[in-house]
Amino acid sequence: MATIKDVAKEAGVSIATVSRVINKSPKASKSSIESVTQAMNKLGYRPNAAAKALVSQSTNTVGVLVGDVSDPFFGTLVKAVDTVAHQHNKHILVGNGYHNAEEERRAIELLINNRCDALVVHAKALSDEELIGYAKEVKGLVLINRHIPQLADRCISLDNKKGAYLATEYLIRHGHTKIACIASSHSIEDAEERVEGYLAALNDHDIKLPKSYIEYSEPNSDGGEVAMTNLLSKSLELSAIVAYNDYMAAGALSVLDENGIQVPNQMSMLGFDDGLIARYVHPRLTTIRYPIEMMAERAAQLALKLAKSEPSEEQAIIFSPTLVRRNSVEKR
Amino acid sequence: MATIKDVAKEAGVSIATVSRVINKSPKASKSSIESVTQAMNKLGYRPNAAAKALVSQSTNTVGVLVGDVSDPFFGTLVKAVDTVAHQHNKHILVGNGYHNAEEERRAIELLINNRCDALVVHAKALSDEELIGYAKEVKGLVLINRHIPQLADRCISLDNKKGAYLATEYLIRHGHTKIACIASSHSIEDAEERVEGYLAALNDHDIKLPKSYIEYSEPNSDGGEVAMTNLLSKSLELSAIVAYNDYMAAGALSVLDENGIQVPNQMSMLGFDDGLIARYVHPRLTTIRYPIEMMAERAAQLALKLAKSEPSEEQAIIFSPTLVRRNSVEKR
Repeated sequence: MATIKDVAKEAGVSIATVSRVINKSPKASKSSIESVTQAMNKLGYRPNAAAKALVSQSTNTVGVLVGDVSDPFFGTLVKAVDTVAHQHNKHILVGNGYHNAEEERRAIELLINNRCDALVVHAKALSDEELIGYAKEVKGLVLINRHIPQLADRCISLDNKKGAYLATEYLIRHGHTKIACIASSHSIEDAEERVEGYLAALNDHDIKLPKSYIEYSEPNSDGGEVAMTNLLSKSLELSAIVAYNDYMAAGALSVLDENGIQVPNQMSMLGFDDGLIARYVHPRLTTIRYPIEMMAERAAQLALKLAKSEPSEEQAIIFSPTLVRRNSVEKR
Repeated sequence: MATIKDVAKEAGVSIATVSRVINKSPKASKSSIESVTQAMNKLGYRPNAAAKALVSQSTNTVGVLVGDVSDPFFGTLVKAVDTVAHQHNKHILVGNGYHNAEEERRAIELLINNRCDALVVHAKALSDEELIGYAKEVKGLVLINRHIPQLADRCISLDNKKGAYLATEYLIRHGHTKIACIASSHSIEDAEERVEGYLAALNDHDIKLPKSYIEYSEPNSDGGEVAMTNLLSKSLELSAIVAYNDYMAAGALSVLDENGIQVPNQMSMLGFDDGLIARYVHPRLTTIRYPIEMMAERAAQLALKLAKSEPSEEQAIIFSPTLVRRNSVEKR
């Protein structure tokens, strides 16, 4: 690959002159612009992004940390950040944290070492303290799907409790009182908050159910199958389920199907996320919409703003989930 | 942010000494390693990736160009490349091309300007000539899901024709002869090759069907609905469908469901890709597996090898699709 030296030699000018042309300095003469441009084209020279970054201490790069980019939820998040970055003539660097503290740390360090202007971080395993440390170091760091009081104005989160409350109350309004909860066994705040929302809705409607109505499992389709199987095994009186997410709901649906229990006639099912699969399962899943695209756009815009030290009048930014009605819930 | 100068001052050594410590030069003395490390920690200094890149002309970065990272197909591709990059202590830079020539060009230019060591490129809109040009410039560039004869040893592709042939023949072996094809209206080679495979299988079994048995539409769920509706409207004698991909199959399934046509009893359906949704639609979709994860791993390994100028004994690398049997096909 041609270097700046080769270009200078070819153009018959000094390296400083080439540098001036590349960096569009007003001191570059018209003739040097011409000869240098010609030489660059001839040699296939490309101005080095690393060199530019070193001069400006900025790489025009927005870093994004997600759990796992192959999950469409995170794919949507990454795409939304990319769209905003695009509008600002920036590009993105993506890291996977796999909800594991060591992986999350490694990915954030890489993004910081690559001088990302702005960082949108979805970290579930790192402690509040550690994230506060990173936020101090990188002024353009914004957290998504997490709420840390000391960083409230740099957190974009969802009111998970409200979402689960909405789901449970919707079932209650449809005449259901025997409502089970398929919960996530991961020890992240989302999991706890959604169970809290479920319990709060029951409580506000004076519905008392034993703890056996809550079943914890892995937050994926297999976990949903296990949880649903366990609920059926317990011979509970049951007419409706709120699931932690759409994947768990899908797994639960397949167990109900195998056991000849019809949804929604005999059992109502409510998901969470409104992800890709909600429209494909049978029956189409009534679910709680997680506005991840909107949230990720907001996070990217805020990160870019903070990176430029522009004043931000933001308070804590907590988005609200909404209910999407499809075909998996019926009146009791 | 602290600079290398600040560190030198704090440690009471020269900048060259700091540089030696950062770059783990054997010339760095034990005492200088200690004082510099201490100073770096105190000031929160991070060795600048841009500066390192400038010295080594390499960024330890693997570039990946995909169509749209929010599609799980591409999410899986990106994750597989990330996994391989990870094993080589590298990270990834992701660009979206949206199957649009201008976007693809812009994304590749960005990745090249950022001195990606290795590039895994999924480009559908750029011409062979343009891609050959990029491949000449970047020795670690590998194309995935595309076959260009002049770059055969740097292309990882799928035998699309064989996949569609497999699907159609599977239906024929199950007694079907009135088989419609739901095809993609996009003018990319995948679309043509899959129709060719369908026609070849019919031909090899002396089945003659009019052109009206092929319906072209957008390669997504909505497109599948449109195509299935059109096929039904034409009152064709029909017992089975091969769809361009799982999304189109899912859309077609929902139209059949709405029209009271039972799958697989009254109509058999075969998808393509074995993507995320194939397991969630009802009935579970019999489909053709696109081994994108395996292909992306291979592409990343090859790109890293070529970037290091290691000899590669690769011939053209064409992967074979396989059939995944689920519940959407039944004997006629």
